[in-house]
Amino acid sequence: MKVLILNGPNLNMLGIRETEIYGKKSYDDLIDKINGYAKELKIDVKIYQSNSESEIIDIIQKAIGSFDGIIINPGAYTHYSYAIAHALAAVSIPAVEVHLTNVFARDNFRHESVTAPKCIGQICGFSFFGYYMALSALKNLEV
Amino acid sequence: MKVLILNGPNLNMLGIRETEIYGKKSYDDLIDKINGYAKELKIDVKIYQSNSESEIIDIIQKAIGSFDGIIINPGAYTHYSYAIAHALAAVSIPAVEVHLTNVFARDNFRHESVTAPKCIGQICGFSFFGYYMALSALKNLEV
Amino acid sequence: MKVLILNGPNLNMLGIRETEIYGKKSYDDLIDKINGYAKELKIDVKIYQSNSESEIIDIIQKAIGSFDGIIINPGAYTHYSYAIAHALAAVSIPAVEVHLTNVFARDNFRHESVTAPKCIGQICGFSFFGYYMALSALKNLEV
Amino acid sequence: MKVLILNGPNLNMLGIRETEIYGKKSYDDLIDKINGYAKELKIDVKIYQSNSESEIIDIIQKAIGSFDGIIINPGAYTHYSYAIAHALAAVSIPAVEVHLTNVFARDNFRHESVTAPKCIGQICGFSFFGYYMALSALKNLEV
Amino acid sequence: MKVLILNGPNLNMLGIRETEIYGKKSYDDLIDKINGYAKELKIDVKIYQSNSESEIIDIIQKAIGSFDGIIINPGAYTHYSYAIAHALAAVSIPAVEVHLTNVFARDNFRHESVTAPKCIGQICGFSFFGYYMALSALKNLEV
Amino acid sequence: MKVLILNGPNLNMLGIRETEIYGKKSYDDLIDKINGYAKELKIDVKIYQSNSESEIIDIIQKAIGSFDGIIINPGAYTHYSYAIAHALAAVSIPAVEVHLTNVFARDNFRHESVTAPKCIGQICGFSFFGYYMALSALKNLEV
Amino acid sequence: MKVLILNGPNLNMLGIRETEIYGKKSYDDLIDKINGYAKELKIDVKIYQSNSESEIIDIIQKAIGSFDGIIINPGAYTHYSYAIAHALAAVSIPAVEVHLTNVFARDNFRHESVTAPKCIGQICGFSFFGYYMALSALKNLEV
Amino acid sequence: MKVLILNGPNLNMLGIRETEIYGKKSYDDLIDKINGYAKELKIDVKIYQSNSESEIIDIIQKAIGSFDGIIINPGAYTHYSYAIAHALAAVSIPAVEVHLTNVFARDNFRHESVTAPKCIGQICGFSFFGYYMALSALKNLEV
Amino acid sequence: MKVLILNGPNLNMLGIRETEIYGKKSYDDLIDKINGYAKELKIDVKIYQSNSESEIIDIIQKAIGSFDGIIINPGAYTHYSYAIAHALAAVSIPAVEVHLTNVFARDNFRHESVTAPKCIGQICGFSFFGYYMALSALKNLEV
Amino acid sequence: MKVLILNGPNLNMLGIRETEIYGKKSYDDLIDKINGYAKELKIDVKIYQSNSESEIIDIIQKAIGSFDGIIINPGAYTHYSYAIAHALAAVSIPAVEVHLTNVFARDNFRHESVTAPKCIGQICGFSFFGYYMALSALKNLEV
Amino acid sequence: MKVLILNGPNLNMLGIRETEIYGKKSYDDLIDKINGYAKELKIDVKIYQSNSESEIIDIIQKAIGSFDGIIINPGAYTHYSYAIAHALAAVSIPAVEVHLTNVFARDNFRHESVTAPKCIGQICGFSFFGYYMALSALKNLEV
Amino acid sequence: MKVLILNGPNLNMLGIRETEIYGKKSYDDLIDKINGYAKELKIDVKIYQSNSESEIIDIIQKAIGSFDGIIINPGAYTHYSYAIAHALAAVSIPAVEVHLTNVFARDNFRHESVTAPKCIGQICGFSFFGYYMALSALKNLEV
Repeated sequence: MKVLILNGPNLNMLGIRETEIYGKKSYDDLIDKINGYAKELKIDVKIYQSNSESEIIDIIQKAIGSFDGIIINPGAYTHYSYAIAHALAAVSIPAVEVHLTNVFARDNFRHESVTAPKCIGQICGFSFFGYYMALSALKNLEV
Repeated sequence: MKVLILNGPNLNMLGIRETEIYGKKSYDDLIDKINGYAKELKIDVKIYQSNSESEIIDIIQKAIGSFDGIIINPGAYTHYSYAIAHALAAVSIPAVEVHLTNVFARDNFRHESVTAPKCIGQICGFSFFGYYMALSALKNLEV
Repeated sequence: MKVLILNGPNLNMLGIRETEIYGKKSYDDLIDKINGYAKELKIDVKIYQSNSESEIIDIIQKAIGSFDGIIINPGAYTHYSYAIAHALAAVSIPAVEVHLTNVFARDNFRHESVTAPKCIGQICGFSFFGYYMALSALKNLEV
Repeated sequence: MKVLILNGPNLNMLGIRETEIYGKKSYDDLIDKINGYAKELKIDVKIYQSNSESEIIDIIQKAIGSFDGIIINPGAYTHYSYAIAHALAAVSIPAVEVHLTNVFARDNFRHESVTAPKCIGQICGFSFFGYYMALSALKNLEV
Repeated sequence: MKVLILNGPNLNMLGIRETEIYGKKSYDDLIDKINGYAKELKIDVKIYQSNSESEIIDIIQKAIGSFDGIIINPGAYTHYSYAIAHALAAVSIPAVEVHLTNVFARDNFRHESVTAPKCIGQICGFSFFGYYMALSALKNLEV
Repeated sequence: MKVLILNGPNLNMLGIRETEIYGKKSYDDLIDKINGYAKELKIDVKIYQSNSESEIIDIIQKAIGSFDGIIINPGAYTHYSYAIAHALAAVSIPAVEVHLTNVFARDNFRHESVTAPKCIGQICGFSFFGYYMALSALKNLEV
Repeated sequence: MKVLILNGPNLNMLGIRETEIYGKKSYDDLIDKINGYAKELKIDVKIYQSNSESEIIDIIQKAIGSFDGIIINPGAYTHYSYAIAHALAAVSIPAVEVHLTNVFARDNFRHESVTAPKCIGQICGFSFFGYYMALSALKNLEV
Repeated sequence: MKVLILNGPNLNMLGIRETEIYGKKSYDDLIDKINGYAKELKIDVKIYQSNSESEIIDIIQKAIGSFDGIIINPGAYTHYSYAIAHALAAVSIPAVEVHLTNVFARDNFRHESVTAPKCIGQICGFSFFGYYMALSALKNLEV
Repeated sequence: MKVLILNGPNLNMLGIRETEIYGKKSYDDLIDKINGYAKELKIDVKIYQSNSESEIIDIIQKAIGSFDGIIINPGAYTHYSYAIAHALAAVSIPAVEVHLTNVFARDNFRHESVTAPKCIGQICGFSFFGYYMALSALKNLEV
Repeated sequence: MKVLILNGPNLNMLGIRETEIYGKKSYDDLIDKINGYAKELKIDVKIYQSNSESEIIDIIQKAIGSFDGIIINPGAYTHYSYAIAHALAAVSIPAVEVHLTNVFARDNFRHESVTAPKCIGQICGFSFFGYYMALSALKNLEV
Repeated sequence: MKVLILNGPNLNMLGIRETEIYGKKSYDDLIDKINGYAKELKIDVKIYQSNSESEIIDIIQKAIGSFDGIIINPGAYTHYSYAIAHALAAVSIPAVEVHLTNVFARDNFRHESVTAPKCIGQICGFSFFGYYMALSALKNLEV
Repeated sequence: MKVLILNGPNLNMLGIRETEIYGKKSYDDLIDKINGYAKELKIDVKIYQSNSESEIIDIIQKAIGSFDGIIINPGAYTHYSYAIAHALAAVSIPAVEVHLTNVFARDNFRHESVTAPKCIGQICGFSFFGYYMALSALKNLEV
C-alpha cells in the first residue's frame, strides 16, 4: 500500500508557529513520527509539504496510478480552496483530511471545510497521532 | 484503561435505518466490532446506547472517577444539544466525538457540532472503524 | 389498518394552555374525537402523548411491524428535534405531520419543520379535524 | 356549500411536467378526481386554472358572495405573491392552501409560503387526495 | 399638467379589505377624492386600477408623451416587482410612490421598496390625502 | 394650529454639505421656505435645528401641551436613534418624518428608519417642498 | 406563598463544573442557600434539579394548583427548548428565569433565551444570590 | 430547426430605456438583428415580447411540439419568477437564457437567476450579439 | 455604601409614555420608591435621569472614588451605545443593568444589550421593584 | 486578431474528472476543438492551462500589447480569486468568462463569480462549444 | 498648517480604562505627545476631547475656514455615528481616522467603521504614535 | 534596522491598473519612493513584489532572523488568504499592513481583512506615503 501525505501552508513552521496551540515539536519531528507510523503499519509513504495551492493541486493530480490513498492536511486552504477540493474530486483515490488541532474549539471560520466533502472522512484534534489514525483508516479500507 | 462508549439516538437502528447511508450492519455488529477493537487495544469498554438527551447527560456525569476516556457519537444531538456539551465540559475526562458518516459531505446542518468543542477531537466518515481510531487516540493520550 | 398517533409536548395541556390560540376543548376531548374519526374510517388507532423527545423516538422505533401508518404532532419538537426526524426516517412507515394551528400565521420559528421532510406530508390549521384528514390520507394511501 | 378551486401556474402541465415528481396523471385527471370528491362530499365546486397572478387575484376578489370556501394551490406564486396573499386577506372567505408534493422535502425556497398566513390552513404532500382533504376541511368548518 | 394615477393590486377592495387597517371608505370614494384634489390643484388626472403587473407596466410605458407625471401605489408589487421598477426607469416621467398606510409601522417586508428608487420620492401613511400630497409635489416640480 | 419643526444633525450645513446631493440652497433658505409654507397654510410653526440626539429628545418631550403636530427630519439619527423613536412614542402628538432626498435611491442603511414607525407617515425625496407636504398633511388631520 | 424552584441540566455539577466560571460551591451549597433565603422571606420552597427536558416540562405542568410562583434556571435548555417555553406559557403561574452567570458577557448563543419571553422577567449574573432576588420578586408581586 | 425567442418585460423599450446602459438601438433593431442571425444560421425563428409573466408562461407551454429550442431573455422576471422557471422545467425543449448586459457587473440582485437552472446555459453581456450566440448554441446541440 | 442610579432617555416620561407597557406611575413615583428601597437597605443613593448619551458617560466617569456601585437603566441606549458600555468598562465600579419590562417578550432589537456585558448582571421585567433587587444585589456583593 | 485562452485549475483533468458532470472528452480534445473553432473564425489563439492563481495573474498581466481579447475559464478561482479579478481589471483587454457547465444548476457557491464583473460577459453551460461562442463574441466586438 | 485633533468618548480615561488594552499612559500624556509631534512637524494643533456625539459634530462643522486638516479618533462612535460621518462629509477638510489599538484583532463590531469612508484614510494599532503618523500624512498632502 | 517590504498581486501594475483609483505613478516610482523614505529614516529595506500567495508565504517564513519588521500590502489576498495570515502569525516579527487606497470608501468586501489581525496595525488611504508611515511606525517601535 502506497500513501501520499500532503501537508499544506505553514505546517513547515511547526515548533516555531504559535507553539501554545501547535506544540513545540518541529516539522522534522512530524516527519519522523509519520515514518514511524508508516513502518508500524507497513505502508509506503511519500510526504510533501507545500505553501502553494497549485503545487498541492499538481501533486494530487499526479497521484493517479501511483498511490492507493491520500492523507491531506490542507492548513488554511481547508477553508477556501475549492480548487484543491476539485482536485481531490477529480482523482479517484480515497483521501483523509487531518488537522492537528480541534478545529471546532477554535475560530468559527475553521469549523467549515470545503475540502472535507471530497474526502472519505476527517480527523481533527489529535496532534501528530492523527496521521497514525489516518494511515490505519486507509489500511482498514483495503481489507 | 477504562473507556465509556456512548451512542446517541437512532444508532440502535443500524442495519434498518437508511441503509444506503449507514450500511447494512446492525447495532449488535457494531458492539461486536467495538469489543473486538477494545480487546486488541487492551482497553476495558462499557457501551451504552440511548435515545435520551438526559440519560446521556446522566451517564456522562456519572463517568467521573470510573472512566479514563469517553467516546461519544451524539447522533442528531451533535447539532443542538448544548446540554450534552455542558456535561462533557463539566467532567474532566478526555472525550472523542465519532460519526459513522462524513458529515461534511451531507446536509449543511450536520457540518456544525455543538458538542465537539468540548471534546479533544472529532473523527468522521470511517464507519465502525472510527471507534477503533477513537480508542487508539485515547490510548495514545495515555502514553 | 393500524395507525399510531403520537402527540408531543404540552398537547396534554389542551383546554388549559393558551386557550385563545388552542381552544377550550381538553386533551380528553381530542382523544374522543380521534377515536370517533378512527371508528368512522375503520382504522385501528393507538394514541400516545409524551413530553419526552426520547420516549417519542422509542415509540416510533417500536412501531416497526405493528403499525401501517403514523400520525405525529411533534409540538415544539417540530422545530428542532432532528433526533425525532431521524427516527421517522429510520422506520419505513408512512407518517403524516399534523398541527392544530396554522403555523404560517404565527411566529417565524414555527414556519420551519425539521420533522416534516421525513413524513409524506403535513397538515396544519384545522384543529382536531386535522387528525381526521391525516387518517383519511393514510387510508387513501392504502387503496 | 359552494367552493371555488383555484389552481395556479403550470398545474395545467400535470402529466407532462417533471413526472418523476408530480406523477403521470394529467390535469384532466385531477379535475375528474376533484369532481368525484365534490360529489361524494355534496359540495358544489367551480374549478379554475390560471398561469396569471392577476387573474387569480381577480377570481378571488369576485368570489365574495358567490362562494363559501376557497381551495387554492398557488403553485410557484406561493413563495412570492404578496398580491395574491392580500387578495385572500381582502375577501372574508375561508381558504385552504394545497400542494401536491411535500414542500418541506424539497428546495428551501418552497418551505416558506406568503399566501398560507392568509388561509385557515395548509395541506401538502398528498397528491390529488389533498383536494379531498381540503374539501372535507371546509365542509367540517360549516358544521 | 397631466398626471397618470396608477393603483395596484387589491386597491379596488378598499372599504372591504382589512378595514381596521385601510379604513371603511371605498375605492370609489378614493377616486372622488383624487378628482377633487386634481380640480383644486388644476391638474388633469387619469386614474387606473389594475391587479396585473404587466398591465401596470404597459400603462407606464404608454405614458410617454401623454403625461407630465405619474403617481403610483404599487400595492404588494412595491416589494418584489423589479419589472415595474424597470418600467418606471424606462420612461422619463417624474413619478411619486404613494402608500395609504405607514409601511414602517407594519411587517418588515413592507419596509423595502424596489420601485421607490425609480421614483423621485415616496409618501406613506396619510391615507387618501397622500394623493393630494403627491399631486402637489408634481405640481411644485413644474414651477 | 401649532407645529413643531425639528431638523436633526448636519441640516444646518445645507448649501455647504454635499451640494450635488442636497442642493445649493442654505439652511436659512429652508427656514424662509418653511415660514412661507406655514403662512400660506395658516399654521404657527416653531423651527429648531440640533446636532444633539438628547436635545432633540428634550424638545420632543417638552412639546406636550404646546404643539398640535411635529415635523421631524432626524437626519442620520433616523437610522439608529431608538431613543428619539421612544420620545416620539412617549408624547401623543401626531408626527411626520421628512427627508430631503429619496432615501430608497441611496445607500442601503438609509432604507430603514427606526423613527418612522412612531410617526403617522414618512415623506422623502421632495427637497424643501417635503415640509409643505408635511404641514398640509398635519393640517388635513385636523379637519 | 409556595414557590417551585427548577434547576436544569448540569446544575447538579456545581463545584465540579468549570469552577473558574461557576465557582467552587456545590449544588448542596446552593440548596442550603435557597432554603436560607426562603426562610428569611417566609416562602415555602420545593427544589428540583433535572437533566431532562421532559421531566422539567412534567414538573411545570403539575405545578398548577400547587404553587404560586416558579423560579427556573433552565441551563442549556434556555437557548433551544421551545417545549419548556410552551409549558411555562401553558400554566398560569408567574415565573422568573435565573442564570448564575452574566449571559451577555459570554458566548453569543447564550444571549438569546427562548424561555424568558414566557416568564415575567429574567435575572442573570448574581450567582446564588439571584435566587434570593427571584424569591423577593415573586413575594413582591403578591403584595 | 425552429426556435422560439421570448423577450420579457421592458425589452420593447430598448433605445428609450436607460440608453447609457442598454444602448440607443431600438427593439425593432433587435428584431432585425435576430432575423439576420437566424437567416445566417438557417434557423426558423418566431419572436415574442411580453411584459406579462403569465403570457410568457403560456407561450412556453404552447411551445411543446412546435419548437426545437427556446431563447429567453426574462428581463426582471429572471430574478423572481419561479413560475416561469417551472414552465421551462415543464416543457422538454432546450432553452438558453440571454441578457444584454453583464449582470455580474451590476446590482447584486441581478447576480442570481431563478430561471437559469432550468435552461441549458446562460449568456450575458454581449448585447444583441448574445442572441446570435444563443442561436448557434442551439444549432450546435442539434449536430 | 454609596450607589449611583442612572436612568436613561425617556424614563422621565413614566406615567405618560406608553402606559399600557410601562404603567401609570410617574418618574417621581419611581424616585420615591427607590429612596424607600435605599432607606430599607441602608444604602446612600444618588439618582440621575438624562436623555443624553454623553451626560450618562460623564456621570459614569465621575463616579470613580465616589460610589461603590452603579445601577443603570440605559433605556434605548442599551441596544446601541457602545460609548456607554466603554464608560462602564473604564471605571472599576460594579454595575447592575435594570429594565422595567421583560425585554425578551418584546421586539427582537431589545433582546441584545451592548451595555450588559460590562455590568455584573442584568435584571428585567420587574418594574420598579427591579431597582430594589439591584440594590440588594450590590449590597450582597459587599458582604 | 489574437486571443489568449486561459484555462484554470483542474481543467487539465477533463475526461478523468467527474465525467458524469464534465463529460468523457479529454483536455486535448478541448484544445483540438478550440483550435478548430479559431481556424474557422480566423483568430490566432494561444492556449494555456494552469492550476496556479499567480501564474494565471502573470499571464493576464503579460497579455498587454500581445492580445486583442482574453477568454478565461477560471475554474474554482471564479468564486474567490479577487486577485485574478484585479488582474483582469488592470489590463485593458476585453475578456470573456466561460464555464463548461451551467453554474446556476449546481451548488450555490458556484452562482457567484468575482471575476465576471471584470469581463465583458459570461457564457456557461455549453460545454466545449462555449469557447466557440466566446471567440465569436470577441470577433464581433472588433467589427 | 493648522490641524484639529478630535478625541471621542472615553479617551479621557486613558491610563485608567482597561489598561491591559490601552496601556498605562494617561490622556495628559497623550496630549503632551501630540504637542511634541506637532512641534517636530511644525504644525499648529488644537486638541479637543468630548464624550458627546453632538459636540464632536459641532466642532467639525466649525472647523471650516479655521483648519487645514482633521485628525479624529471617534472611539465607540466609529461604529455607529452616521451623524459624525455626515459632518465629516459636509466640511471639505481632509480628515484622518486614528485608533490606538488594532481594531481588526478585537471584537467583530470594531472591524467596521462608518466614519472612515468620509476620511482620506485610517490608521490603527500604533498607540500614541498613530497621531504622529496622521500628522505627517496631513503634512504630506500639503506638499 | 532591517525591514522586509512585501507587495502583493497586481501592485506591479501601478500606473497601468485602474489609474483613476490608483493614480498614474508606476511600480518603479513606488520603489523609488520607498527607497527614499528608507534612506531618510535610516532603515535598510528589501522590497519584493509577487502575485503568488505561496511565494509571499515563503518570503515571510524566511524573514525570521533576517528582518526586524515587515510591511505588507497583501492586495486582494487581504480579503481571503488565511494562509498568509497564518504565516504572519507564525513568525515573530512585527508587521504593518498598508493599503494605497481607503478600503472603507470602496466595495464592502474590502472592509474586512483576514491578515490585519496578525499585524500590529493597518494604514490605508495615503497612497505611497503609507509606506513612509509604516516605516516610521516600525522605527518608533524600536525606540
